[in-house]
Amino acid sequence: MPLYFNATIVLVGETMDPVTSDQQVKVYPDVTIQDAPKLDFFFLPGGHGTEAVIANKQLMEHIEERIDESRWCLTVCTGAAILAASGRADGRYMTTNKVAWNKFIEYGPKVKWVKRARWVQDGKYVSSSGVSAGIDMSFYMISALYGEPFAKQFANWIEYTRHTNANVDPFADLYPNNRDAPTGTGALPTATPTSMPPRNPTRSPTPKPTHTN
Amino acid sequence: MPLYFNATIVLVGETMDPVTSDQQVKVYPDVTIQDAPKLDFFFLPGGHGTEAVIANKQLMEHIEERIDESRWCLTVCTGAAILAASGRADGRYMTTNKVAWNKFIEYGPKVKWVKRARWVQDGKYVSSSGVSAGIDMSFYMISALYGEPFAKQFANWIEYTRHTNANVDPFADLYPNNRDAPTGTGALPTATPTSMPPRNPTRSPTPKPTHTN
Repeated sequence: MPLYFNATIVLVGETMDPVTSDQQVKVYPDVTIQDAPKLDFFFLPGGHGTEAVIANKQLMEHIEERIDESRWCLTVCTGAAILAASGRADGRYMTTNKVAWNKFIEYGPKVKWVKRARWVQDGKYVSSSGVSAGIDMSFYMISALYGEPFAKQFANWIEYTRHTNANVDPFADLYPNNRDAPTGTGALPTATPTSMPPRNPTRSPTPKPTHTN
Repeated sequence: MPLYFNATIVLVGETMDPVTSDQQVKVYPDVTIQDAPKLDFFFLPGGHGTEAVIANKQLMEHIEERIDESRWCLTVCTGAAILAASGRADGRYMTTNKVAWNKFIEYGPKVKWVKRARWVQDGKYVSSSGVSAGIDMSFYMISALYGEPFAKQFANWIEYTRHTNANVDPFADLYPNNRDAPTGTGALPTATPTSMPPRNPTRSPTPKPTHTN
């Protein structure tokens, strides 16, 4: 069944074996990373498994192929380190989880890490800060691709109070020992460029409501 | 593996067959509703399946048993209608999704529905408003049971900006045609009683961090 904007979600695994999340929830892949279709949005989540993924050379090779062929590559939390380790975001602006900051920016010595950002878009790469920042990044993408009225309506349906400004990051100040970007660039004046190309117009801009009265 | 506060999450299904969510993600039950263990927190989610659940008499009987033996019964979104339909919350204060309000409060004609509330606690029954309000309700429970410092630390880890006041509901005003409670009580001056009994102290109040620098 299509989502309200004709998206198909595909859970990609290293194998078809179920993966147990930190919260003990078993997640069953729909397809292996090797057999994954070309993705419009390739989403790299974070968590405790991040470093094991990066250490797995063959898995990383497949991930890099998927990154290269995807229209957008999005990261949440420490998933940024996977993109960073791929080298694909060298020279680009990214952000990641604030509590794990010092450890995970090591994976991208050539990335221009932005310490104070809810999310950062640089070309096809969109990285978000810790865990729930991924929701705000997703709404940013929905707003950019489908228009702000739809994003707003969507947020109202799920009764979610968004962070709509990528540069407002209430969590950046909690960790004063977090290092600036290794490249020394520090924070961007504007973390999110607005020059995002419009999305393929065959996607329906008209959502179906999740509920009707 | 235990959660950071020694919880075990059990996904309860009508059968052991996987259930496909509205977003096409397959969820695999850990146990059937008939064989479910006695739960500390019995969590009723909402969604398009709500009415099918309520129409299923045998399933509702099992749900009612689980509600009665659980320490807490929590609802998110239209999941409130399942609790309401059970009759267990008759005479109690509850809330539910705002966009689907008029339709779903019908399932609890004797419930004192609170239209303007992010969440409502009345005894062991804790109901939250639409979708993401469940996150704030969960933090309310974590704060009440494990202390506000832990709840705050937890929210900082996942970089989540909480609604901490149950009576602040930015979504209640979006639907002016939503009816007041059938009982005519309207909104509570304070939606959340504070007289929550302390939790079994054998649960660890000391969380493990999700990440270490």
